[in-house]
Amino acid sequence: MAPDSNRRSEKSRRAIYAAALTLVAEVGYPKTTIEAIAARAGVGKQTIYRWWSSKAEVLMEAFVDLGAQAAEAAGGGDWAETDGIPDTGDLEADLKTVLRATVDELNDPRYEAPARALAAEGVGNPAFAKEFVATLLLPSLELYVRRLRAAQDAGQVRADVDPYIARDLVVSPLAQRWLQGTGPLDHAVADKLVEYALYGIAPR
Amino acid sequence: MAPDSNRRSEKSRRAIYAAALTLVAEVGYPKTTIEAIAARAGVGKQTIYRWWSSKAEVLMEAFVDLGAQAAEAAGGGDWAETDGIPDTGDLEADLKTVLRATVDELNDPRYEAPARALAAEGVGNPAFAKEFVATLLLPSLELYVRRLRAAQDAGQVRADVDPYIARDLVVSPLAQRWLQGTGPLDHAVADKLVEYALYGIAPR
Repeated sequence: MAPDSNRRSEKSRRAIYAAALTLVAEVGYPKTTIEAIAARAGVGKQTIYRWWSSKAEVLMEAFVDLGAQAAEAAGGGDWAETDGIPDTGDLEADLKTVLRATVDELNDPRYEAPARALAAEGVGNPAFAKEFVATLLLPSLELYVRRLRAAQDAGQVRADVDPYIARDLVVSPLAQRWLQGTGPLDHAVADKLVEYALYGIAPR
Repeated sequence: MAPDSNRRSEKSRRAIYAAALTLVAEVGYPKTTIEAIAARAGVGKQTIYRWWSSKAEVLMEAFVDLGAQAAEAAGGGDWAETDGIPDTGDLEADLKTVLRATVDELNDPRYEAPARALAAEGVGNPAFAKEFVATLLLPSLELYVRRLRAAQDAGQVRADVDPYIARDLVVSPLAQRWLQGTGPLDHAVADKLVEYALYGIAPR
């Protein structure tokens, strides 16, 4: 394709992502249709079906893109560019970096409304939830598991610790506070979660 | 009122709770109406309005009642009867007891479907969420905070620990696994959560 055509495609793609995210935030997942996304994005339905086979697919990709943009906007250290969790050798610092960035993303209004609409659909609709969790949530949660395994190799986490449960100690409190409003969601909370998970709440 | 009339009322109340829980599981919160609850329970609409002012109120009470029944069925140690968390002086054992019971409740099909419908509505509808969280969730989460404060007084949890964040270390992983299906939900997970939260995942 000529460069001009690529640029046009990229522009349509971004317009479609934006339309999908805006619509799901405004009318919810069930009422978001390919037709409505196309109309809002100012493209033909065929343009969407050329690239995606369902509205779920469009939305998943729009979210992945939003996450990538947020990571870039967050200052884009090396870790953001590799789409993983930093490994400076200091687990406590690295987890605080990524949890603080997660808090910022969860509090970002561009993310908040569409993510909440998708999460609501996921909680109430098990089939959708499976795809949503498998596509959007589990891959990013897996990065924590990988970082925790590296910390086990480096002797910073006990070898007998289940890295999936360790992951949940730091990630799930942010998720529940965001999903259910059970407490504040700020950097101080992120830092304390990491400290308590690493060193425990009992006296050492 | 005569004893007979009290018995009749109690029976109607239970039928109304059951109807409300079944309906919300079957058709979701938005489509659950007082009329439908009354029809399903075999009572007049007036009977419901005599005791409750909204469907939200009926449902909240039905859930509180379901929780009380579950606690009783779970074997009803003293702790279940006081509707709190046991305080045997052994924080680790007490938290494991209550987290295991929570896992059993979350996995109980009588609880699962209506709770999921209510949680989905809560995630997507902030006004409803506020009431739902304030009425159903926060009071039971507060019991953990109280137990953790008692443990601080007893020197089993560091005095500088924020009990709300400590609460989330053990409770939120169960909540997220249940809400989003991010991992198994069994007694082994409950036990490890308590151990990691108390003693940390870093070598001691």
